Amino acid sequence: MKYFVSVILFCHTLVGCQREKNDASSVNTDELLVRIAELEIYPEYIDEYISILQIEAAASVEVESGVISIFPMTIKDDKNKVRIIEIYADQAAYKSHLKTPHFLLYKTSTAEMVKDLKLIDMTAIDPSGMSSIFKKLN
Amino acid sequence: MKYFVSVILFCHTLVGCQREKNDASSVNTDELLVRIAELEIYPEYIDEYISILQIEAAASVEVESGVISIFPMTIKDDKNKVRIIEIYADQAAYKSHLKTPHFLLYKTSTAEMVKDLKLIDMTAIDPSGMSSIFKKLN
Repeated sequence: MKYFVSVILFCHTLVGCQREKNDASSVNTDELLVRIAELEIYPEYIDEYISILQIEAAASVEVESGVISIFPMTIKDDKNKVRIIEIYADQAAYKSHLKTPHFLLYKTSTAEMVKDLKLIDMTAIDPSGMSSIFKKLN
Repeated sequence: MKYFVSVILFCHTLVGCQREKNDASSVNTDELLVRIAELEIYPEYIDEYISILQIEAAASVEVESGVISIFPMTIKDDKNKVRIIEIYADQAAYKSHLKTPHFLLYKTSTAEMVKDLKLIDMTAIDPSGMSSIFKKLN
Protein backbone atom coordinates (compact mmCIF):
# COMPACT_ATOMS: atom_id res chain seq x y z
CA MET A 1 0.00 0.00 0.00
CA LYS A 2 2.80 2.35 1.02
CA TYR A 3 4.52 1.46 -2.25
CA PHE A 4 1.50 2.47 -4.32
CA VAL A 5 1.03 5.76 -2.49
CA SER A 6 4.70 6.56 -3.13
CA VAL A 7 4.43 5.62 -6.79
CA ILE A 8 1.26 7.66 -7.32
CA LEU A 9 2.76 10.71 -5.59
CA PHE A 10 5.94 10.22 -7.60
CA CYS A 11 4.04 10.05 -10.89
CA HIS A 12 1.90 13.06 -10.10
CA THR A 13 4.99 15.10 -9.32
CA LEU A 14 6.60 13.85 -12.50
CA VAL A 15 3.58 14.74 -14.60
CA GLY A 16 3.47 18.20 -13.06
CA CYS A 17 7.15 18.83 -13.60
CA GLN A 18 7.75 17.24 -16.96
CA ARG A 19 4.49 17.44 -18.92
CA GLU A 20 5.29 18.14 -22.55
CA LYS A 21 3.04 19.32 -25.29
CA ASN A 22 2.38 16.38 -27.60
CA ASP A 23 3.22 17.57 -31.06
CA ALA A 24 1.69 15.08 -33.52
CA SER A 25 3.36 16.81 -36.44
CA SER A 26 6.78 15.80 -35.07
CA VAL A 27 6.07 12.05 -35.47
CA ASN A 28 7.51 10.54 -38.65
CA THR A 29 5.85 7.14 -39.17
CA ASP A 30 8.90 5.86 -41.09
CA GLU A 31 10.96 6.14 -37.91
CA LEU A 32 8.50 4.40 -35.57
CA LEU A 33 9.79 1.65 -33.31
CA VAL A 34 7.05 -0.97 -32.90
CA ARG A 35 7.42 -3.92 -30.56
CA ILE A 36 5.51 -6.73 -28.91
CA ALA A 37 6.78 -7.55 -25.42
CA GLU A 38 5.85 -11.10 -24.37
CA LEU A 39 6.06 -11.68 -20.61
CA GLU A 40 5.21 -14.46 -18.23
CA ILE A 41 4.66 -13.40 -14.62
CA TYR A 42 4.86 -15.64 -11.56
CA PRO A 43 1.20 -16.28 -10.59
CA GLU A 44 1.57 -14.94 -7.06
CA TYR A 45 2.67 -11.56 -8.43
CA ILE A 46 0.33 -11.07 -11.41
CA ASP A 47 -2.11 -8.61 -9.76
CA GLU A 48 0.68 -6.52 -8.26
CA TYR A 49 2.62 -6.60 -11.55
CA ILE A 50 -0.40 -5.36 -13.51
CA SER A 51 -0.98 -2.49 -11.10
CA ILE A 52 2.64 -1.36 -11.42
CA LEU A 53 2.58 -1.77 -15.22
CA GLN A 54 -0.60 0.33 -15.52
CA ILE A 55 0.99 3.18 -13.60
CA GLU A 56 4.19 2.99 -15.67
CA ALA A 57 2.32 2.85 -18.98
CA ALA A 58 0.10 5.82 -18.12
CA ALA A 59 3.05 7.91 -16.88
CA SER A 60 5.10 7.11 -20.01
CA VAL A 61 2.39 8.12 -22.47
CA GLU A 62 1.53 11.17 -20.39
CA VAL A 63 4.95 12.71 -19.91
CA GLU A 64 6.99 11.43 -22.85
CA SER A 65 6.02 12.87 -26.22
CA GLY A 66 8.04 10.09 -27.93
CA VAL A 67 6.00 7.27 -26.35
CA ILE A 68 3.09 6.82 -28.79
CA SER A 69 1.50 3.82 -27.14
CA ILE A 70 2.00 1.26 -24.40
CA PHE A 71 -0.98 -1.07 -24.75
CA PRO A 72 -0.97 -4.01 -22.29
CA MET A 73 -3.11 -7.14 -22.50
CA THR A 74 -3.22 -10.57 -20.87
CA ILE A 75 -4.04 -13.87 -22.56
CA LYS A 76 -7.61 -14.73 -21.62
CA ASP A 77 -6.91 -18.42 -20.99
CA ASP A 78 -3.60 -17.82 -19.22
CA LYS A 79 -3.74 -14.57 -17.33
CA ASN A 80 -0.11 -14.77 -16.19
CA LYS A 81 1.00 -14.20 -19.79
CA VAL A 82 1.18 -10.52 -20.71
CA ARG A 83 1.52 -8.97 -24.16
CA ILE A 84 2.37 -5.29 -24.54
CA ILE A 85 2.21 -3.40 -27.84
CA GLU A 86 4.80 -0.65 -27.51
CA ILE A 87 5.19 2.14 -30.06
CA TYR A 88 7.89 4.81 -29.82
CA ALA A 89 8.42 7.76 -32.18
CA ASP A 90 11.98 6.63 -32.95
CA GLN A 91 15.07 4.96 -31.45
CA ALA A 92 16.04 8.13 -29.59
CA ALA A 93 12.61 8.25 -27.91
CA TYR A 94 13.01 4.62 -26.84
CA LYS A 95 16.50 5.19 -25.44
CA SER A 96 15.25 8.22 -23.56
CA HIS A 97 12.33 6.18 -22.17
CA LEU A 98 14.74 3.62 -20.70
CA LYS A 99 16.32 6.35 -18.57
CA THR A 100 13.12 7.85 -17.13
CA PRO A 101 12.47 7.53 -13.37
CA HIS A 102 9.07 5.85 -13.95
CA PHE A 103 10.55 3.17 -16.23
CA LEU A 104 13.48 2.51 -13.88
CA LEU A 105 11.07 2.23 -10.93
CA TYR A 106 8.86 -0.22 -12.89
CA LYS A 107 11.90 -2.26 -13.94
CA THR A 108 13.42 -2.61 -10.49
CA SER A 109 10.14 -3.14 -8.63
CA THR A 110 8.93 -5.90 -10.99
CA ALA A 111 12.28 -7.65 -11.60
CA GLU A 112 11.56 -10.59 -9.30
CA MET A 113 7.98 -10.97 -10.62
CA VAL A 114 8.99 -11.73 -14.21
CA LYS A 115 9.49 -15.40 -15.09
CA ASP A 116 10.15 -14.81 -18.81
CA LEU A 117 10.51 -11.81 -21.14
CA LYS A 118 10.85 -11.63 -24.91
CA LEU A 119 11.07 -8.36 -26.85
CA ILE A 120 10.04 -8.78 -30.49
CA ASP A 121 10.70 -5.94 -32.93
CA MET A 122 7.87 -5.51 -35.41
CA THR A 123 7.19 -3.71 -38.67
CA ALA A 124 3.80 -2.01 -38.89
CA ILE A 125 2.31 -2.99 -42.24
CA ASP A 126 0.67 0.37 -42.80
CA PRO A 127 2.20 2.92 -40.42
CA SER A 128 0.71 5.85 -42.35
CA GLY A 129 -2.77 4.50 -41.56
CA MET A 130 -2.12 4.14 -37.85
CA SER A 131 -3.72 7.46 -37.04
CA SER A 132 -7.12 5.90 -37.67
CA ILE A 133 -6.53 3.12 -35.15
CA PHE A 134 -8.94 3.22 -32.26
CA LYS A 135 -10.43 6.51 -33.48
CA LYS A 136 -13.86 5.01 -32.87
CA LEU A 137 -13.13 5.04 -29.14
CA ASN A 138 -12.09 8.69 -29.08
CA MET B 1 -3.35 -7.49 -61.22
CA LYS B 2 -6.87 -8.28 -62.40
CA TYR B 3 -7.56 -9.61 -58.91
CA PHE B 4 -6.52 -6.37 -57.26
CA VAL B 5 -8.55 -4.21 -59.64
CA SER B 6 -11.59 -6.39 -58.87
CA VAL B 7 -10.97 -6.17 -55.13
CA ILE B 8 -10.50 -2.40 -55.19
CA LEU B 9 -13.67 -1.89 -57.25
CA PHE B 10 -15.49 -4.29 -54.95
CA CYS B 11 -14.38 -2.44 -51.84
CA HIS B 12 -15.22 0.96 -53.28
CA THR B 13 -18.73 -0.24 -54.11
CA LEU B 14 -19.02 -1.73 -50.67
CA VAL B 15 -17.89 1.46 -48.96
CA GLY B 16 -20.35 3.47 -51.01
CA CYS B 17 -23.26 1.16 -50.30
CA GLN B 18 -22.68 0.23 -46.71
CA ARG B 19 -20.87 3.14 -45.07
CA GLU B 20 -22.21 3.53 -41.57
CA LYS B 21 -21.81 6.44 -39.23
CA ASN B 22 -19.30 5.46 -36.56
CA ASP B 23 -21.01 6.13 -33.27
CA ALA B 24 -18.31 6.19 -30.60
CA SER B 25 -20.87 6.50 -27.84
CA SER B 26 -22.24 3.05 -28.71
CA VAL B 27 -18.98 1.28 -27.80
CA ASN B 28 -19.00 -0.26 -24.32
CA THR B 29 -15.40 -1.10 -23.39
CA ASP B 30 -16.57 -3.90 -21.06
CA GLU B 31 -17.89 -5.79 -24.10
CA LEU B 32 -14.81 -5.42 -26.31
CA LEU B 33 -13.42 -8.51 -28.00
CA VAL B 34 -9.63 -8.18 -28.20
CA ARG B 35 -7.47 -10.69 -30.02
CA ILE B 36 -3.99 -11.31 -31.34
CA ALA B 37 -3.95 -13.36 -34.56
CA GLU B 38 -0.60 -15.09 -35.10
CA LEU B 39 -0.04 -16.20 -38.69
CA GLU B 40 2.78 -17.73 -40.66
CA ILE B 41 2.60 -17.20 -44.42
CA TYR B 42 4.39 -19.27 -47.08
CA PRO B 43 7.34 -17.07 -48.20
CA GLU B 44 6.34 -17.06 -51.88
CA TYR B 45 2.96 -15.49 -50.96
CA ILE B 46 3.92 -12.95 -48.29
CA ASP B 47 3.78 -9.81 -50.46
CA GLU B 48 0.47 -10.79 -52.05
CA TYR B 49 -0.95 -11.80 -48.67
CA ILE B 50 -0.06 -8.43 -47.14
CA SER B 51 -1.69 -6.52 -50.04
CA ILE B 52 -4.93 -8.49 -49.61
CA LEU B 53 -4.84 -8.11 -45.82
CA GLN B 54 -4.38 -4.33 -46.06
CA ILE B 55 -7.44 -4.01 -48.31
CA GLU B 56 -9.53 -6.22 -46.02
CA ALA B 57 -8.43 -4.38 -42.86
CA ALA B 58 -9.16 -0.95 -44.34
CA ALA B 59 -12.58 -2.04 -45.67
CA SER B 60 -13.54 -3.60 -42.33
CA VAL B 61 -12.71 -0.52 -40.25
CA GLU B 62 -14.30 1.75 -42.86
CA VAL B 63 -17.67 0.06 -43.32
CA GLU B 64 -18.24 -1.83 -40.06
CA SER B 65 -18.94 0.36 -37.04
CA GLY B 66 -18.27 -2.65 -34.77
CA VAL B 67 -14.70 -3.15 -36.02
CA ILE B 68 -12.63 -0.87 -33.77
CA SER B 69 -9.19 -1.84 -35.05
CA ILE B 70 -7.39 -4.30 -37.29
CA PHE B 71 -3.70 -3.47 -36.80
CA PRO B 72 -1.34 -5.75 -38.76
CA MET B 73 2.42 -6.11 -38.22
CA THR B 74 5.20 -8.47 -39.29
CA ILE B 75 8.09 -9.71 -37.15
CA LYS B 76 11.17 -7.71 -38.20
CA ASP B 77 13.52 -10.72 -38.20
CA ASP B 78 11.02 -13.10 -39.80
CA LYS B 79 8.79 -11.19 -42.19
CA ASN B 80 6.64 -14.23 -43.00
CA LYS B 81 5.24 -14.14 -39.47
CA VAL B 82 2.29 -11.77 -39.14
CA ARG B 83 0.67 -10.49 -35.96
CA ILE B 84 -2.70 -8.72 -36.11
CA ILE B 85 -4.27 -6.88 -33.17
CA GLU B 86 -8.02 -7.14 -33.73
CA ILE B 87 -10.55 -5.24 -31.63
CA TYR B 88 -14.32 -5.62 -32.08
CA ALA B 89 -17.04 -3.75 -30.19
CA ASP B 90 -18.58 -7.04 -28.98
CA GLN B 91 -19.25 -10.67 -29.96
CA ALA B 92 -22.13 -9.66 -32.24
CA ALA B 93 -19.87 -7.29 -34.16
CA TYR B 94 -17.32 -10.07 -34.61
CA LYS B 95 -19.93 -12.56 -35.81
CA SER B 96 -21.26 -9.98 -38.25
CA HIS B 97 -17.71 -9.31 -39.52
CA LEU B 98 -17.26 -12.99 -40.37
CA LYS B 99 -20.20 -12.77 -42.80
CA THR B 100 -19.12 -9.64 -44.68
CA PRO B 101 -18.19 -9.94 -48.37
CA HIS B 102 -14.76 -8.35 -47.80
CA PHE B 103 -13.87 -10.81 -45.02
CA LEU B 104 -15.10 -13.80 -47.02
CA LEU B 105 -13.11 -12.64 -50.06
CA TYR B 106 -9.98 -12.23 -47.90
CA LYS B 107 -10.48 -15.65 -46.31
CA THR B 108 -10.95 -17.57 -49.54
CA SER B 109 -8.29 -15.73 -51.54
CA THR B 110 -5.59 -16.20 -48.87
CA ALA B 111 -6.49 -19.74 -47.74
CA GLU B 112 -3.64 -21.44 -49.60
CA MET B 113 -1.11 -18.78 -48.52
CA VAL B 114 -1.46 -19.46 -44.77
CA LYS B 115 0.91 -22.03 -43.28
CA ASP B 116 -0.22 -21.58 -39.69
CA LEU B 117 -2.87 -19.57 -37.82
CA LYS B 118 -3.50 -19.10 -34.11
CA LEU B 119 -6.25 -16.88 -32.71
CA ILE B 120 -5.53 -15.79 -29.13
CA ASP B 121 -8.26 -14.09 -27.12
CA MET B 122 -6.92 -11.29 -24.95
CA THR B 123 -8.06 -9.12 -22.08
CA ALA B 124 -7.15 -5.45 -22.39
CA ILE B 125 -5.67 -4.44 -19.03
CA ASP B 126 -7.18 -0.96 -19.14
CA PRO B 127 -9.95 -0.87 -21.77
CA SER B 128 -11.29 2.43 -20.46
CA GLY B 129 -7.94 4.05 -21.26
CA MET B 130 -7.82 2.74 -24.82
CA SER B 131 -9.24 5.93 -26.25
CA SER B 132 -5.91 7.61 -25.62
CA ILE B 133 -4.00 5.01 -27.63
CA PHE B 134 -2.29 6.45 -30.65
CA LYS B 135 -3.91 9.84 -30.05
CA LYS B 136 -0.49 11.38 -30.67
CA LEU B 137 -0.75 10.31 -34.29
CA ASN B 138 -4.19 11.83 -34.84
